[in-house]
Amino acid sequence: MPFELPTFTLILDFVGTFAFAISGIRLASAKHFDLFGAYVVGLTTAVGGGTMRDVMLGLTPFWMTNSFYLICSGLALVWVLIFGRQLIRQGVTWFLFDTIGLALFTVVGIEKTLQCGLPWWTAIIMGTMTGAAGGMLRDVFINEVPLIFRKEIYALACVVGGVVYILCRHWGCDEILTSCLSGGTVILMRLLAVKYHLSLPILKGEEAYAKKEEK
Amino acid sequence: MPFELPTFTLILDFVGTFAFAISGIRLASAKHFDLFGAYVVGLTTAVGGGTMRDVMLGLTPFWMTNSFYLICSGLALVWVLIFGRQLIRQGVTWFLFDTIGLALFTVVGIEKTLQCGLPWWTAIIMGTMTGAAGGMLRDVFINEVPLIFRKEIYALACVVGGVVYILCRHWGCDEILTSCLSGGTVILMRLLAVKYHLSLPILKGEEAYAKKEEK
Amino acid sequence: MPFELPTFTLILDFVGTFAFAISGIRLASAKHFDLFGAYVVGLTTAVGGGTMRDVMLGLTPFWMTNSFYLICSGLALVWVLIFGRQLIRQGVTWFLFDTIGLALFTVVGIEKTLQCGLPWWTAIIMGTMTGAAGGMLRDVFINEVPLIFRKEIYALACVVGGVVYILCRHWGCDEILTSCLSGGTVILMRLLAVKYHLSLPILKGEEAYAKKEEK
Repeated sequence: MPFELPTFTLILDFVGTFAFAISGIRLASAKHFDLFGAYVVGLTTAVGGGTMRDVMLGLTPFWMTNSFYLICSGLALVWVLIFGRQLIRQGVTWFLFDTIGLALFTVVGIEKTLQCGLPWWTAIIMGTMTGAAGGMLRDVFINEVPLIFRKEIYALACVVGGVVYILCRHWGCDEILTSCLSGGTVILMRLLAVKYHLSLPILKGEEAYAKKEEK
Repeated sequence: MPFELPTFTLILDFVGTFAFAISGIRLASAKHFDLFGAYVVGLTTAVGGGTMRDVMLGLTPFWMTNSFYLICSGLALVWVLIFGRQLIRQGVTWFLFDTIGLALFTVVGIEKTLQCGLPWWTAIIMGTMTGAAGGMLRDVFINEVPLIFRKEIYALACVVGGVVYILCRHWGCDEILTSCLSGGTVILMRLLAVKYHLSLPILKGEEAYAKKEEK
Repeated sequence: MPFELPTFTLILDFVGTFAFAISGIRLASAKHFDLFGAYVVGLTTAVGGGTMRDVMLGLTPFWMTNSFYLICSGLALVWVLIFGRQLIRQGVTWFLFDTIGLALFTVVGIEKTLQCGLPWWTAIIMGTMTGAAGGMLRDVFINEVPLIFRKEIYALACVVGGVVYILCRHWGCDEILTSCLSGGTVILMRLLAVKYHLSLPILKGEEAYAKKEEK
């Protein structure tokens, strides 16, 4: 059963996939990966979250029947090779594209999970996973502690967007309005979090515990 | 097809999930994760092993249709926030709860795998994975070498408990007796291992090999 | 539906699985893992790529219905325990066995994916994953940046072998010839890459980007 996206969504999907792949490729290049490694990390960042979702839902991962995502990640690699250090000046653009991707992937993840007949709270988790787990896998591959566990509000924006989605559907909004409100919430929260340096409280570490466990 | 647990098992399940989540949250807090990151690491520690098992068995991961595990991990986060450093004094309690979880998860993993019609040795592996893989994923997320590969006997207790399970079933014991003997073996082995500092031999490292590979 | 391999392939499968497991066990021993940890890392190196493939294809992982791979990894552990440091002198032999495994696993991965009715480019990716992802999981477990992202041509050999496979089938070669040409390409590329120190270009790192993200 194919999962059709209308044209406008297709454009957003391209923008988001491209931005996610760029983020993976840039971090891979900072770790001196070769071209192949950079492509794999970029692709994983772009499709990793959705792949985890599809595997857990028992579906064939979405990129296995649609070459769009592989090509898109390849174009991202070419873009990094051509524009290189100029990417730093394009920082705001990539941040916006990345945020659009986060919002879209979250909404798509929620819809797909609800279509599988799973409960609403599973849908919110799967939406968050679709948006945020690609970046987590990227960080595991480049051997860093995943940023989403420490950085300003990122995955939490997906959770709140997911709650908005579920509430809108509960109150009888139609599908398009629900998607827009939910995705808009993700984008708004992410923008506000970065602008005002909002972040969640950090847990006080018990160094002694960590050391004892690592002994 | 729901996987029903009787009430007593439900209590053990709560105790085990809670203790596993606490262990993940404490290690996350030692790494200065934020609240969201700590919850994700706690949840992963608690349900990660069972999720890997269910994905490999082709089943819907157990926590996706039962909110019990998400709530339980959330309560563990609240507990860590409230009791904080007092957790260190509760060390023995958490060790016992963690061990109960290890035993229960192992038995549940074996039963589920056998119900899928897979061979007994796969069931032992899946039982061990259910018990021990959550802690392994936790360690990958916090960017440490997984403890279960170096620490005192932990996963091996699951393997031995699994062998006891298979032997009991082979000799015609009923399901409840088998579960108790198998789970009891896991608990006993873990207690003895910690009390007498038992551990498996460490392999002699070939530093040269590692360096050559990393070159 | 069992996936039957003829006798000759079975021998290659043993050689490849054994060599992959040896590589995992040696790296684990360099990190001072215990016996159990070394076995798990060896097994993961040997079956990890195929397990990821089978999970994504919605199949039961191949080693869950055939104890061959578990026994083979166990024999590899015994071999490392007995021969220890002599393995270094056997370096060329293990390199060849490892390369044979890489070639075979790639071909098997492609065939299984095409049998599932997926497109040719997915088959190439799945073949590459079957060959190379076990080593990637191994490196994540031992907490190193995966070698395949930085080392001389390794996964790329699988990709090229995969392209040869698809072209041969397209041009009407029979299954055995296709497999031999494809696997031979993987082996040849790997030998040439190591002999002439061929590697892919390394991406120029943007240290500033990495630091900003990690902030």
